Amino acid sequence: MSDHVYKKVEVVGSSTTSIEDAIENALTECNKTLSNLDWFEVTETRGHIVDGKVGHYQVTLKVGYRL
Amino acid sequence: MSDHVYKKVEVVGSSTTSIEDAIENALTECNKTLSNLDWFEVTETRGHIVDGKVGHYQVTLKVGYRL
Amino acid sequence: MSDHVYKKVEVVGSSTTSIEDAIENALTECNKTLSNLDWFEVTETRGHIVDGKVGHYQVTLKVGYRL
Amino acid sequence: MSDHVYKKVEVVGSSTTSIEDAIENALTECNKTLSNLDWFEVTETRGHIVDGKVGHYQVTLKVGYRL
Amino acid sequence: MSDHVYKKVEVVGSSTTSIEDAIENALTECNKTLSNLDWFEVTETRGHIVDGKVGHYQVTLKVGYRL
Amino acid sequence: MSDHVYKKVEVVGSSTTSIEDAIENALTECNKTLSNLDWFEVTETRGHIVDGKVGHYQVTLKVGYRL
Amino acid sequence: MSDHVYKKVEVVGSSTTSIEDAIENALTECNKTLSNLDWFEVTETRGHIVDGKVGHYQVTLKVGYRL
Amino acid sequence: MSDHVYKKVEVVGSSTTSIEDAIENALTECNKTLSNLDWFEVTETRGHIVDGKVGHYQVTLKVGYRL
Amino acid sequence: MSDHVYKKVEVVGSSTTSIEDAIENALTECNKTLSNLDWFEVTETRGHIVDGKVGHYQVTLKVGYRL
Amino acid sequence: MSDHVYKKVEVVGSSTTSIEDAIENALTECNKTLSNLDWFEVTETRGHIVDGKVGHYQVTLKVGYRL
Amino acid sequence: MSDHVYKKVEVVGSSTTSIEDAIENALTECNKTLSNLDWFEVTETRGHIVDGKVGHYQVTLKVGYRL
Amino acid sequence: MSDHVYKKVEVVGSSTTSIEDAIENALTECNKTLSNLDWFEVTETRGHIVDGKVGHYQVTLKVGYRL
Repeated sequence: MSDHVYKKVEVVGSSTTSIEDAIENALTECNKTLSNLDWFEVTETRGHIVDGKVGHYQVTLKVGYRL
Repeated sequence: MSDHVYKKVEVVGSSTTSIEDAIENALTECNKTLSNLDWFEVTETRGHIVDGKVGHYQVTLKVGYRL
Repeated sequence: MSDHVYKKVEVVGSSTTSIEDAIENALTECNKTLSNLDWFEVTETRGHIVDGKVGHYQVTLKVGYRL
Repeated sequence: MSDHVYKKVEVVGSSTTSIEDAIENALTECNKTLSNLDWFEVTETRGHIVDGKVGHYQVTLKVGYRL
Repeated sequence: MSDHVYKKVEVVGSSTTSIEDAIENALTECNKTLSNLDWFEVTETRGHIVDGKVGHYQVTLKVGYRL
Repeated sequence: MSDHVYKKVEVVGSSTTSIEDAIENALTECNKTLSNLDWFEVTETRGHIVDGKVGHYQVTLKVGYRL
Repeated sequence: MSDHVYKKVEVVGSSTTSIEDAIENALTECNKTLSNLDWFEVTETRGHIVDGKVGHYQVTLKVGYRL
Repeated sequence: MSDHVYKKVEVVGSSTTSIEDAIENALTECNKTLSNLDWFEVTETRGHIVDGKVGHYQVTLKVGYRL
Repeated sequence: MSDHVYKKVEVVGSSTTSIEDAIENALTECNKTLSNLDWFEVTETRGHIVDGKVGHYQVTLKVGYRL
Repeated sequence: MSDHVYKKVEVVGSSTTSIEDAIENALTECNKTLSNLDWFEVTETRGHIVDGKVGHYQVTLKVGYRL
Repeated sequence: MSDHVYKKVEVVGSSTTSIEDAIENALTECNKTLSNLDWFEVTETRGHIVDGKVGHYQVTLKVGYRL
Repeated sequence: MSDHVYKKVEVVGSSTTSIEDAIENALTECNKTLSNLDWFEVTETRGHIVDGKVGHYQVTLKVGYRL
């Protein structure tokens, strides 16, 4: 990362199964339009409740990629 | 959520297996006494260590429900 | 914990599979040189991206142990 | 407030018109079941967007009342 | 929000009249180039002072929209 | 704390003498209506000033108890 | 703002009608004794409750002015 | 506090004996030059160590007073 | 800034020589694709270590520009 | 502190009597193995509850010492 | 710092050349009207952009001085 | 960083000349006793004032190294 510049975008992925799956779903979507994805940082973990159980997880990430 | 009022309670769920399971355990307990559970926000993830391994996860949630 | 003193160290565990596994890997390493590990607190969850997917999770923990 | 004990509850009020109205709606709801409401602290201001405009404001408050 | 991915952008709206108007101005501008605007979160409220009075409010929002 | 669920309530205790006494006063009040009080976390320390001296301390606590 | 130095003071304005009015009241007071008021930043929004309604808003501001 | 404006100043009191005494020392000093001291908020608690013991406590306060 | 809307993007600049140089490198890159850059806010300062010395600084900025 | 380097360690002291005593207990333990203890910063104050009263205080400190 | 009381003021220094120079400019201005300046804490680093480069740095400091 | 565990230590470097020099001084000291230093994160920038000028900068870093 010596002389590069990186940009960070903030996305929210969701999944009915796990926090990790919500992260992967967010990265898959970012990867469609952005190149050189490099790292992510989780900034918020929350979710929707359906019938007293987790309906889906919603994980907010900052995703860094090289310009 | 147009003209409703919601209340948030803070609970700690625990599980020997995973962060997701600790969240579900907390929601199951809330669901016994509260109706209309709507969303949750994870505010802290920690745990107890037994013999150098995770003994159980302790996940603190704010749980929102409609009044 | 009535009259003991505890110390907290900050470590980063990584794993290609899950957040829980990254936590266990960090604890395993701490357990090699520290005795009486008692609890952990997750302070940061991030990761490296490879080919648009999670390459590995990096979870920062504070680990408390009795002196 | 010399020798009293107070409790704080966290509620979310909403309104289609203003932040102040969302606060009042939350207080009106609290006042139905709690006595001696004393002060509030705004902890979050957000809202839902409909057709590119504010659909309704959602204001999270901590409300303190004397036990 | 079950299996969607959302993106959040950060914008600053301004208004000479009110905080609510500054929010609406920011959303109107976002709506020109982004579709599916869904929610906003206020992250900062400040303003410029002219002749000892509020010249204009400057409200920073994170705006979430569905990808 | 292996398979229990805990709830946290936020209370403000006051005392004319010390921070510790304000904490005890808050716990005494909680103990009247809640069972199984387990731990507390101080989240704010403030107070009222009378004649240039501390009139009383006001200490905000989160109090955790087993459900 | 190229080669100036600014000072920030922290004030609390109150109003029975709105958040904006509380801000203006705080600025009016600052303007009596300070010159060159330039900008403000809201750091806290709270209020007093009377009969289950907002008695008055209390808005804390940092106010910047040129030395 | 209905239509008043308050100012907050930040001071650090110290004491060799206790946190409460450090707070009182800070208030005593403020009271020499400011009138209408009303409330304080503790923002930091630290201290100097001498020979492995607390040399003195240093407590940072925001002190609010009516203008 | 009376009736404009601004957008903020988050970028990471790096430099082997100084924090200021890392900031300038980030701005130079932003300036290639964005017009009307107006201000920046440093949100994180970190770096990579090579042979026990700073290999390069990595400075995260939010950059505001007029829409 | 002109050309020295300092290290900070994080410890938790406990006491059945007071916050100040918990701080002293933590420092006494640090002083057994570390030289040149210089200052401390309180980062968390919490405690265990026994029979509706404070069982013991647990105070987390960062302790700085000269290398 | 054993039995003194200190006050902290918040100032913003600016400089076209460096962060350090902005700090020095702020201190020089404080030193004109305040005696016994003792320490400073950087709370914010930002700046104005001119033609895609740093126009000037703006560094916010809390400056402590003995009363 | 795929399957390694890292530890973070917190140090304070000082310098009479610049923030960057204070960082380098801290790293030089860490490098005497720790191997595999990998990255640092600045967590606090402050300093001592002598005769109304910066006497020395004090920069707090978290330094990460591979175990």
